[in-house]
Amino acid sequence: MKKQLSIVKIGGNVINNSEQLDLFLHNFAKLDGLKILVHGGGRRATEMADSLGLHPKMIGGRRVTDEANLEVVTMVYAGLLNKNIVAKLQAKACNALGLSGADANVIKAHKRVVKEIDYGFAGDIDEVENKAIALFLNGGITPVFSAITHDGQGQLLNTNADTIAAELAKGLSLLFEVELIYCFEKNGVLRQVDDDDSVIDQIDKITYERLKKEGVIAEGMLPKMENCFDALQEGVHKVLIGKPELISDKHIKHTTLLL
Amino acid sequence: MKKQLSIVKIGGNVINNSEQLDLFLHNFAKLDGLKILVHGGGRRATEMADSLGLHPKMIGGRRVTDEANLEVVTMVYAGLLNKNIVAKLQAKACNALGLSGADANVIKAHKRVVKEIDYGFAGDIDEVENKAIALFLNGGITPVFSAITHDGQGQLLNTNADTIAAELAKGLSLLFEVELIYCFEKNGVLRQVDDDDSVIDQIDKITYERLKKEGVIAEGMLPKMENCFDALQEGVHKVLIGKPELISDKHIKHTTLLL
Repeated sequence: MKKQLSIVKIGGNVINNSEQLDLFLHNFAKLDGLKILVHGGGRRATEMADSLGLHPKMIGGRRVTDEANLEVVTMVYAGLLNKNIVAKLQAKACNALGLSGADANVIKAHKRVVKEIDYGFAGDIDEVENKAIALFLNGGITPVFSAITHDGQGQLLNTNADTIAAELAKGLSLLFEVELIYCFEKNGVLRQVDDDDSVIDQIDKITYERLKKEGVIAEGMLPKMENCFDALQEGVHKVLIGKPELISDKHIKHTTLLL
Repeated sequence: MKKQLSIVKIGGNVINNSEQLDLFLHNFAKLDGLKILVHGGGRRATEMADSLGLHPKMIGGRRVTDEANLEVVTMVYAGLLNKNIVAKLQAKACNALGLSGADANVIKAHKRVVKEIDYGFAGDIDEVENKAIALFLNGGITPVFSAITHDGQGQLLNTNADTIAAELAKGLSLLFEVELIYCFEKNGVLRQVDDDDSVIDQIDKITYERLKKEGVIAEGMLPKMENCFDALQEGVHKVLIGKPELISDKHIKHTTLLL
């Protein structure tokens, strides 16, 4: 029987608030069993770029990563945020190990192919090295992933943290029974965007297609949901979406995704 | 019989020059057997602090690490430099894993006790977790250490890279036969500071004490040499000091330290 593994993704809303982050890390450290944390960037990278007089170009809400901005996200995501999260988890008796995709070659990607838009040094994931990650997990270590990968040719790449979480979940499903938990600022997938009580408890693939057609699921949620269903299709056991508190209390409102 | 392990430390002179760094990493990747790289910071941290309008206070040639400067060194050492070195080693088929002392709790330190001078968030090392490092080494992984440690209470600390290399060598001598190689800009320990041909081939403890009294070894070399003899006394097999090329060609001029 496969061992259970929880993969938890947190984003800017948790990272930006030091009290929320502390509370989350407290709960994460207490989670039983094997686990992995994936964290996004939050506003520190933007603030740092501003302080350095860099102004990242945005196209359709997405950052264009030129060389100078790649340096900034590498510093902030893989350095400042990642190492502080690791140090805080260590203080809570969770044996964390901070990783970029380059470390132990755990996530290989390629620079996004330029079609209409050139996103610069943005990475699309090709491969997850699940054996190295399993070595860490079975050695009592909790991997903590920043949103930086590499191309195997010496180039670091800025990579979406939601996608990293989904690709890790897929890659590790061969070795573990994986539960993927996306934490964000809402109670789950909502029927009405501005009503946090309108959580949809369960969404299966057929319901998803209908909600998409009806426009209930739109914009930012679309790529997140595509990632999730893709992960379920490739063997991930379960996907949950909700607030950070969800990781320690599965009874609070949230959305469960099913095939 | 213990397996052999090479621990190589490089400093600013290699880090600051991208051609030199590439050549060094090429040679390091080709080194046979188990190995660890420890890297210093170079001038990028100072440049970054300048760009951000921070001006680190220096006392007796040492940086005073306040909170803002700790953020800068964490970003630059553990993020920018460490991840770029790891990505470059991966491209050369060396399975590198970037580490701060907080990662997998590998190096625990304490904030330097304030006597006459307050160095701020500077770390003095207490403990090396050699079992975690052995797990990596025996798993075919090459650890790459940045000069950041932690105190186990959630605080990151700026820590001298020479000291990290020596403490790793000592801690790992229990499990491996360790050769410690310090690479810097000179051919070794010199009789005349400005004559790179005046290398002293071998220095044992008695010679060292004499050279110290005569003032031949002074200033910056003193703490480095103290670290080295301390390491030899605690079981490190061999210490070599010389230029970066030394790692691939032991026949070039260098200094060997003996007990």
